[in-house]
Amino acid sequence: MPAEIKGLNEECGVFGVFGAPDASQLTYYGLHTLQHRGQEGAGIVSTDGQNLYQHRDRGLLAKVFADPAELKRLVGEAAIGHVRYGTSGHNSIVNVQPFLFHFHDGDIALAHNGNLTNAVTLRRQLEDEGAVFQSDSDTEILIHLIRKHIKKGLVAAVKESLNQVHGGFAYLLLQKDRLIAALDPNGIRPLCIGQLSNGAYVVASETCALDIINAKFVRDVQPGELIIIDRDGLHIDHYTTDTQLAICSMEYIYFARPDSIIHGVTVHNARKAMGRRLAHEHPVAADMVIGVPNSSLSAASGYAEEIGLPYEMGLIKSQYVARTFIQPTQELRERGVHLKLSAVRGVVSGKRVAVVDDSIVRGTTSRQIIKMLRDAGAKEVHMLIASPPFKFPCFYGIDISTRSELLAAHYSVEGMRQQIGADSLSFLSVAGLIEAINVPDAGDAPDGGLTVAYFNGDYPTPLYDYEAGYLKSLNEQEQRERRERGNQ
Amino acid sequence: MPAEIKGLNEECGVFGVFGAPDASQLTYYGLHTLQHRGQEGAGIVSTDGQNLYQHRDRGLLAKVFADPAELKRLVGEAAIGHVRYGTSGHNSIVNVQPFLFHFHDGDIALAHNGNLTNAVTLRRQLEDEGAVFQSDSDTEILIHLIRKHIKKGLVAAVKESLNQVHGGFAYLLLQKDRLIAALDPNGIRPLCIGQLSNGAYVVASETCALDIINAKFVRDVQPGELIIIDRDGLHIDHYTTDTQLAICSMEYIYFARPDSIIHGVTVHNARKAMGRRLAHEHPVAADMVIGVPNSSLSAASGYAEEIGLPYEMGLIKSQYVARTFIQPTQELRERGVHLKLSAVRGVVSGKRVAVVDDSIVRGTTSRQIIKMLRDAGAKEVHMLIASPPFKFPCFYGIDISTRSELLAAHYSVEGMRQQIGADSLSFLSVAGLIEAINVPDAGDAPDGGLTVAYFNGDYPTPLYDYEAGYLKSLNEQEQRERRERGNQ
Amino acid sequence: MPAEIKGLNEECGVFGVFGAPDASQLTYYGLHTLQHRGQEGAGIVSTDGQNLYQHRDRGLLAKVFADPAELKRLVGEAAIGHVRYGTSGHNSIVNVQPFLFHFHDGDIALAHNGNLTNAVTLRRQLEDEGAVFQSDSDTEILIHLIRKHIKKGLVAAVKESLNQVHGGFAYLLLQKDRLIAALDPNGIRPLCIGQLSNGAYVVASETCALDIINAKFVRDVQPGELIIIDRDGLHIDHYTTDTQLAICSMEYIYFARPDSIIHGVTVHNARKAMGRRLAHEHPVAADMVIGVPNSSLSAASGYAEEIGLPYEMGLIKSQYVARTFIQPTQELRERGVHLKLSAVRGVVSGKRVAVVDDSIVRGTTSRQIIKMLRDAGAKEVHMLIASPPFKFPCFYGIDISTRSELLAAHYSVEGMRQQIGADSLSFLSVAGLIEAINVPDAGDAPDGGLTVAYFNGDYPTPLYDYEAGYLKSLNEQEQRERRERGNQ
Amino acid sequence: MPAEIKGLNEECGVFGVFGAPDASQLTYYGLHTLQHRGQEGAGIVSTDGQNLYQHRDRGLLAKVFADPAELKRLVGEAAIGHVRYGTSGHNSIVNVQPFLFHFHDGDIALAHNGNLTNAVTLRRQLEDEGAVFQSDSDTEILIHLIRKHIKKGLVAAVKESLNQVHGGFAYLLLQKDRLIAALDPNGIRPLCIGQLSNGAYVVASETCALDIINAKFVRDVQPGELIIIDRDGLHIDHYTTDTQLAICSMEYIYFARPDSIIHGVTVHNARKAMGRRLAHEHPVAADMVIGVPNSSLSAASGYAEEIGLPYEMGLIKSQYVARTFIQPTQELRERGVHLKLSAVRGVVSGKRVAVVDDSIVRGTTSRQIIKMLRDAGAKEVHMLIASPPFKFPCFYGIDISTRSELLAAHYSVEGMRQQIGADSLSFLSVAGLIEAINVPDAGDAPDGGLTVAYFNGDYPTPLYDYEAGYLKSLNEQEQRERRERGNQ
Repeated sequence: MPAEIKGLNEECGVFGVFGAPDASQLTYYGLHTLQHRGQEGAGIVSTDGQNLYQHRDRGLLAKVFADPAELKRLVGEAAIGHVRYGTSGHNSIVNVQPFLFHFHDGDIALAHNGNLTNAVTLRRQLEDEGAVFQSDSDTEILIHLIRKHIKKGLVAAVKESLNQVHGGFAYLLLQKDRLIAALDPNGIRPLCIGQLSNGAYVVASETCALDIINAKFVRDVQPGELIIIDRDGLHIDHYTTDTQLAICSMEYIYFARPDSIIHGVTVHNARKAMGRRLAHEHPVAADMVIGVPNSSLSAASGYAEEIGLPYEMGLIKSQYVARTFIQPTQELRERGVHLKLSAVRGVVSGKRVAVVDDSIVRGTTSRQIIKMLRDAGAKEVHMLIASPPFKFPCFYGIDISTRSELLAAHYSVEGMRQQIGADSLSFLSVAGLIEAINVPDAGDAPDGGLTVAYFNGDYPTPLYDYEAGYLKSLNEQEQRERRERGNQ
Repeated sequence: MPAEIKGLNEECGVFGVFGAPDASQLTYYGLHTLQHRGQEGAGIVSTDGQNLYQHRDRGLLAKVFADPAELKRLVGEAAIGHVRYGTSGHNSIVNVQPFLFHFHDGDIALAHNGNLTNAVTLRRQLEDEGAVFQSDSDTEILIHLIRKHIKKGLVAAVKESLNQVHGGFAYLLLQKDRLIAALDPNGIRPLCIGQLSNGAYVVASETCALDIINAKFVRDVQPGELIIIDRDGLHIDHYTTDTQLAICSMEYIYFARPDSIIHGVTVHNARKAMGRRLAHEHPVAADMVIGVPNSSLSAASGYAEEIGLPYEMGLIKSQYVARTFIQPTQELRERGVHLKLSAVRGVVSGKRVAVVDDSIVRGTTSRQIIKMLRDAGAKEVHMLIASPPFKFPCFYGIDISTRSELLAAHYSVEGMRQQIGADSLSFLSVAGLIEAINVPDAGDAPDGGLTVAYFNGDYPTPLYDYEAGYLKSLNEQEQRERRERGNQ
Repeated sequence: MPAEIKGLNEECGVFGVFGAPDASQLTYYGLHTLQHRGQEGAGIVSTDGQNLYQHRDRGLLAKVFADPAELKRLVGEAAIGHVRYGTSGHNSIVNVQPFLFHFHDGDIALAHNGNLTNAVTLRRQLEDEGAVFQSDSDTEILIHLIRKHIKKGLVAAVKESLNQVHGGFAYLLLQKDRLIAALDPNGIRPLCIGQLSNGAYVVASETCALDIINAKFVRDVQPGELIIIDRDGLHIDHYTTDTQLAICSMEYIYFARPDSIIHGVTVHNARKAMGRRLAHEHPVAADMVIGVPNSSLSAASGYAEEIGLPYEMGLIKSQYVARTFIQPTQELRERGVHLKLSAVRGVVSGKRVAVVDDSIVRGTTSRQIIKMLRDAGAKEVHMLIASPPFKFPCFYGIDISTRSELLAAHYSVEGMRQQIGADSLSFLSVAGLIEAINVPDAGDAPDGGLTVAYFNGDYPTPLYDYEAGYLKSLNEQEQRERRERGNQ
Repeated sequence: MPAEIKGLNEECGVFGVFGAPDASQLTYYGLHTLQHRGQEGAGIVSTDGQNLYQHRDRGLLAKVFADPAELKRLVGEAAIGHVRYGTSGHNSIVNVQPFLFHFHDGDIALAHNGNLTNAVTLRRQLEDEGAVFQSDSDTEILIHLIRKHIKKGLVAAVKESLNQVHGGFAYLLLQKDRLIAALDPNGIRPLCIGQLSNGAYVVASETCALDIINAKFVRDVQPGELIIIDRDGLHIDHYTTDTQLAICSMEYIYFARPDSIIHGVTVHNARKAMGRRLAHEHPVAADMVIGVPNSSLSAASGYAEEIGLPYEMGLIKSQYVARTFIQPTQELRERGVHLKLSAVRGVVSGKRVAVVDDSIVRGTTSRQIIKMLRDAGAKEVHMLIASPPFKFPCFYGIDISTRSELLAAHYSVEGMRQQIGADSLSFLSVAGLIEAINVPDAGDAPDGGLTVAYFNGDYPTPLYDYEAGYLKSLNEQEQRERRERGNQ
C-alpha cells in the first residue's frame, strides 16, 4: 500500500541542549536555522529538572511562537526542538513533534528526523499487543518499544528498542535529568554535537544551528552511537557496532544549508565542486551561466568559474511567497503569471544560457524555467544538473517513496530533454558526485560513505515494508541489474 | 523640526491597471513583485465603473489579503494598489494607501510613491483654510489641492495641484472611469507603462511588475508627464515642461529588483557594472570575493569576474526571519546570536576575504558582518562598497532625512574603516557610479540623469521645508563648497 | 435616495472621563456596559495632556482590546470612547469612532451617538467648498464645521457648529486639556454626568456606565447644553435655549439596559409598568405569561403579576451565539434549526400561552416565536406587545429610516395578527406608554417629554434631507392626518 | 494526592448522530445547545463509512469552527462531538475530545462526560504493562482497556472494559459503521436518545440538543445500558444489570439548561418547584424577590409566586463578558468595578430584598452580591438558597473534589450567614429538594433516584482512589455519622 506508506515520510530537523540557562531560547534560534528542513510544524519541550513543558503547533517557527509568552513558559536548562516537514493531507497537530509522553514514573519527550523501513510491521505488532497510538507518525513507535522494556532501565530499554527499528533516523529524547541522542547504523541523517562556552552540550541536525548560538563544533555523531548528556557531561555510547557510514547524498545536493559542515565537508564547497566537476564532464557553449535560486547558486558559480563564463542573475526568486498567498487561477497561470521565480529579461534576452540546477524530480519546474527563459528572449537554454538522474525512491526521510513521480524513472536523458524542452540536458555522473563531495570520514565505506541509492538503486539497508512495492516498481532491466548486483 | 519631518518619509511601490477583467488580481500579483519597496502595509482599490472598492491593512500583502474573499470583493476592470514603507512609531491603518475619498460628485482613490519637500507648509495652509486631514502622510495633500480647484474639471485641477507640490513623487489616481498617473519634474521615482495582450494598460513602479503579469513594456513615464488611461486608451499629457531627468541613483544601487529595467538599464547589469568598475578603481589582494546577500550579489560577482578571483558564498541570509520573530536578548546578542546573516566558516576560515556591499548607511551592519567573518576565521576582511560614501540625506522618499545617522557624514574613509573594523575600505567614485549605470535616456541632464545628491549634496530641486534644517547640518567646509557651487 | 440615507443611521454609545489616573481603563469598563448599544466597532482616545492616543477596530470591545497592550498604550487622565452600531455593507474601520483629527494647532477626538437630519445637505455644501471627508459617517461633519469657525476659538466654533446640525445627537469632544459634551435641543439621545470619588467627572450614554466604575450620578445632560470639563472642573453652558425635551421612547422600550436610569426613570421599572398597563388594556385568558428574552422579561413579569398568572420561562435564549457562528443552511432552517431562541416544551406543551414582547418591527421574529411555541405543543399563543404599533421610521439614530420594512406601516392589527399567526395580538396604547414611563423631568413638553413619532408620525424636529422621501412614503390618510395636525 | 486527582475532573457535554446526511452540522448545532456544559474546548469526529475525520481545538465551539471549511471537511452521515470543561493549568489541545485513535484494524473515536473514581489505579496498571497515554484525561483509559480485550470483538471488549471503570460516565464511541453509547450503572450523568424525521438516531447529554435539530425524544438511556446504532437501527443492550438510578441532583439545580427534560422532569419546572418549596420552608418578610441571573431565575419566580411578592430584576448580568476581557486591577475591584453582575439601584434602593440563588459553593459570589445590593441601597438582604448546604465533594464529574473550598463544610448556616453578610440565610432541605424534583423514573431507588451526596455524604458508589483522601477530610462527627450509616 504505497499511498499509506508515503504518508509516513518526512524530512525534518532536530535540536537539543542540556545545561544552558536559556535552553528553550537557544533551541528556538537553533530551530530557526533548521527551518529549511521543515516548515509544516515546530515545537519545543523543555525541562527544569522537575517537569517537562511543551509547546508545538502547525506552521513556521515564527508563527508557532508568535506569542513570546509561549517560549517564556518553557523554562529550564534543557530542551529539545523539532521542525517538521509533512507532505499532504490534513496536517494535524498530533503529528507535530517533539512528542511529550506522561508516565507515572516520569515524562519523556521525543523528536525524530528520518524514516523507518519497518514501521508498518512494528506498529501492527504493537497494536495487536494492545498499544494505542496517538499520531500517524512512525516516531511514536520508539516510545512504545521503550516502554515494553522499561523494567530494564531506560538506557537499556532505548538500546534494545533502537535495534528493533530500521531505516534512517536521528532521535532526541529528553527526560527531566537527561538528554539522549541516537543515530541509525548508517548515519543516513546528519547529527552533530557542539558545546557552548559555559560547557553545555548541544546536538543538532546541522552545524548552522551550532553557529547561530556560537557553540563550538565538537564532532559528528557516528552511525550506531548513543549520546547521553546529563549533569556529569557528555557520554558517548553505542547500541550496535554493525555500522557503516552512508550519509544521504541529497543533504549535500539539496537539503542542507550551504554553511553547514557535514562529516567534514562544507555544503557550499561540495556544491561548488559539483559545479566544477560538471563543467569538466559536460562543458557547453553559452554566453553565460545562471543558477536556479537558491539551492543551485553554488554549483552554478562553480560551473561558471571552471568553464570561464560570466555568472549572471538570470532568474530571480521572490522572498515574499507566503503560505497564505493567493494562487493565480489556471487562466492567469496560462497567461504566464508565476509567483516564485522570474526570468531577468535584461540579462538573458538574445543570449545562449547555461542553467545549472541541483536536480530534476518531476521535471515540472525545469520545464517552467526553460519556458520562462525563452519567453524572456533567451536564444538557447542548456540545462545542467549538478547530480545524477534521480531514478529511485528514498525510504529514509525524503518525501519520494514511489517511482511514479520521478521523471528519470520513465525517460532516458534525451527523453527528459524533450519533456522539459531544453536545447541540451546533462547530468553529473555518480562517480563525479562522490568525488566532488569527497567525505573524509568515509574510510572504506562503499560509494565514498554516501547513500546514492536514488541514482543507482543500491540501498544501504534492507527495505522491509517497502521491499515488495519497490520490486514491483522496477522494470525488467532494473530487476536484472539488481539481481546481478546481488541485492536481495 | 526634523523629527516630525522624518516621520513623513517613505519608499513605496505603486501599481495600476485599466481595462482588464481581473484588475484587482493583476494588481495583487503586481504588488507582490513590488513588495521589496514596502512591507508595512498594502492596499488595493478597484472600480467596476460605478463604485470604488477598497481593502487595505498593515503588514505584508499576503497577510493583508490572507482572506481571499477580500480580493474577490474588489470587482471591476480597473484598480490601483500600493505597498507602503513606514519607519517607526504606531503604524496606523489610516496611513495605509491607496486612500479612498468619497465625494457626492464621485469617489477618488490615490496612491503615492515619494516625498514632498513643501508638505508641511502646504498642510498648514490648507488646515488654516478649514481642511481636515485624515492621515499623517503627505499623500493626502494632493487631494485637498485638487478639491480646491475641482470646479475647473478634474484634469485641470490635477495639473494645477501638481504644480503646487514639490519633491519626488509618482502618483496614481483612480476614478470610476479613469486612471491617472503623474511623475515629478525630475522623474526622481521610477514609473513605467505596460500593456496586456488584451490591450489594457498597466502602470507600475518597476518593470518586474509588468513581467509577472506578462505585460509588454511600453515606455517609462517621463518627468512632468500626466498619463490618462480610460476607455479610449492611453493619453500622454504633461502638467509642466520645466523638467530634467534626475532619477534616484539608489534605485539602481539598492532599492529596485535586479530584474527591473529603469530608463533602459537592467538593474542587475548596472550593479554588475558597478562591481566591475569598483575592481578597476580599487583592486584588492584577496583569496575570494563574497557579496552581502541579497542586494550586493550582482556587484560582488562583477567584482570577482573583473579581478579574476573566485566568487564564494561567505555569508548566508535566512529566508525565514519573520516580523513576529522573537529577537535575541541583549545577552544573547553579545554571545553572537544573529538571526538574519551567518558567516560560512567552511568557506572563509583562514582566507583573505573581499566583501562587496552596496552601501554603508549607519555602519552597524558592516561592523557586524566584519566581526562575524573574523569570528568564522577570516584572516583579512576587505570592505568594498559599490557606491560612493552616503553623506547627505534624501528628501525624496528614502527614509534618511537627517545627517546624524549617516556614518559618512561624520568620518573620513579611514575613520569609517576604523569604525567598522575592516582591514581596508574602498568606495566607488561618483563618476564611476554614473558611468557604470549609464542611463541612455539621460541626454544632457547633469550627473548622467541621476540624483547623486546623497553623495555630493547637489539636490536637483529646492528643499523648501527641509532647507533650514539641512543648512544647519552642514559643517563649515560643506557650507563653503555649497556656496561655491551656487546652490542657494 | 433612501438607500444612501439609510446607511448613515446608527445607534451607539459614548463614554468620557476627565481627571482620573486610569482614564482609558475606566472608559473600557464604561463601554463594556454600553456594549448593547453597538457591537460593530469600538474605540478609545486618551490624552496625557500632551498627545492624544487612539485605538479602535471593528468588532466587540473585548476583541478590539484583546491585546491588553493596546489599552495600556492609551495613557493619560482623560479619555473618550465609543461603541458603534453599523447596519450593513462593508463595515470599514474608517467609520469606527472616536475619530481622531490631527491639526498643526492641536488634535481633536470626536465621538457621536445619534443621527443628523441635514447631514447630506451639509456634507455636499462642505465638499463644494473643498472639504475632504474620510468616513461615510455624518459624525465627521461637525469637525469640518468647527474648523471653518476655528479662528473664533474652539468653544465658540463648537457652539456655532452645533446650531448648524439638526436631528438627534450626543457628542463628545476631547482635546489635550478639555472634554466637551453636547446634546441636541430635544435631548433625543440620553446622556448623563457622574463623578468619581476623586472628583473626576464622567459622561456616558447611560447610568449603568457610571455604576460599573462606582461613579455617583450627578445629573442628566439637558437639551441644548454644552458641558465643558477641564482642570477647573465642570462647566455647564448651552449653545441654544430653543429646546424641548423629547427623549426617544425606544430607549425605555428596547434599547437601554434595564438598570439604567434615564431622566429619573429606571428602565426596568418603566418596562414593568408597561406590562402592568398592558394587562389593564388587554387582559387575555391564558395559563401562563412568558416573555421574549431578554428585553421583554420585565414587561412580561409586570403583565403576569398584574393579571395574576404564573410567569414562566417558555422561551430560552442561547448565551453563546457568536458573530462567527456558522448559520444553518436553508434546508436545516426549514427543518426547524434555530440558534438563538428555543421554546421550552416541558413548560408550554398543552398550555394557553400569553407571550409579551417589546415591539414588532418586521414581524419575522414574532412569526418564528409563535411557530416555535406551537411546535413545542402550545395550545394557544396570544401576542402582547408592550408598545404601540411601530408605523413610522426613526431619523434620530435607530436603524429604521424607511417604512417599507415596518409591518405596522402596511397592515392593521388584525392583518398583523394573521401575518404572524397569533391567536390574538394586542398593543399598548400611546397614552398608556407615556403614562407607564412617566418622565418626571417632562414638564409641559408634549407627549410627556418623549419622542413617540414612531407610533404617530409627530416628529419633534423638521426632517430636512428625509422630508421628501418621508412624505412620499405616507398613504393618503396619513398625509391628510399630518396636514390636519399642522405638521408641514 | 488531591491536587493531581482534582485536575482530572470535568463536567462536559456529548452529542452523537448516525444516519443523517449532514451529521457534523447537526452535531455542531447540538453541541451549541450543550455549550453551557463546557467552554474550554470542543471537537467533532465524523465518518463517511470509510474514514474518520476530526477537528477539535481549545475555546468555544464558535471559535473552534470559526473557519467553516473545518466543518465542511467533516463529511459523512455519522458523527460524535464533545464540549469540554477543564479547570486550570495549561489547557492542552491533546485533552480536547473526541479523541481519535488510529489502528490498523480500524479507527475509533471516543467522547466522555463524567469522572472515574479508579482512574489513577487503572492508568498505573496499564502503564506498567507498556501503555503510552497521550492525554491527562481519564477518558483515554477506556480505549486502552478495550484494546486489551479486542480479540473478543469490539462489543465484547467494550462491555468488559465498562465493568472495569467505576464512577460517573456517559461514553460515546464512533467507528466507521457504528455508534456506541454507554452510561454508568447509576446513571449519574444524563444521556438521552432522539430520532430525526428521516429515522436517524441521536444521542445527547440533554434534550435541548434534540430540540434544536428537531429530533423527537425517544427515551433516556438507563443505567448500565449499552446503546448500539448502526445501519440496522437502534439496539439496546446492557453491560451490567447491577444498576440503580442516582442521577446527579446538581443537573437539576444548576448545570442543565432550563428547557431540558431529564428522566421526565423539565429543569425549569424542577427549579420553580424548588423555589415554591423553599417559600414554604422559609418564608421571609421582604418587599420583593429577585433571582441571581441566569440559573436562579426559575427558582426566584417560583418563590415570588408562592409567597405573593413581586418578582423584580434586581441584578443584571452582562451578556458580553468574553474570555479575552481585560480584568479590573485589584485597585479598581476594590473601587467596586464588577464586570459580570450589576445591582439595579432603581429597583432595590430602600427595599427589603429576598435574593434567591441556586447554591453556595465558596460563598465569594454571595458575599459580592450582597455587598452590591447594599451599595445600591437595599435596606435588607435575605439570602434564600434553593438547594441544601453543599458540604461534600463530587467525584463524578463536577469540579469540586476536595472539601477545603466548600463554605458549608466549614461553617454552620449561621456562620455562613455571617461570612456572606446577609440579614438572613436559608436553605432548602434535602427532603424538599427530592420532593421538588420528583423523578418519575425513580422507582424505589434511594433519595428519589438522585445523587444527593453533596449534601449528606452518601455516595452511591465506592470511592476507590478518592476514598483515603475523603475520609481524612471528614471531621469527627461526620466520620461517626458515616460509620453509623454503614458506609465503608
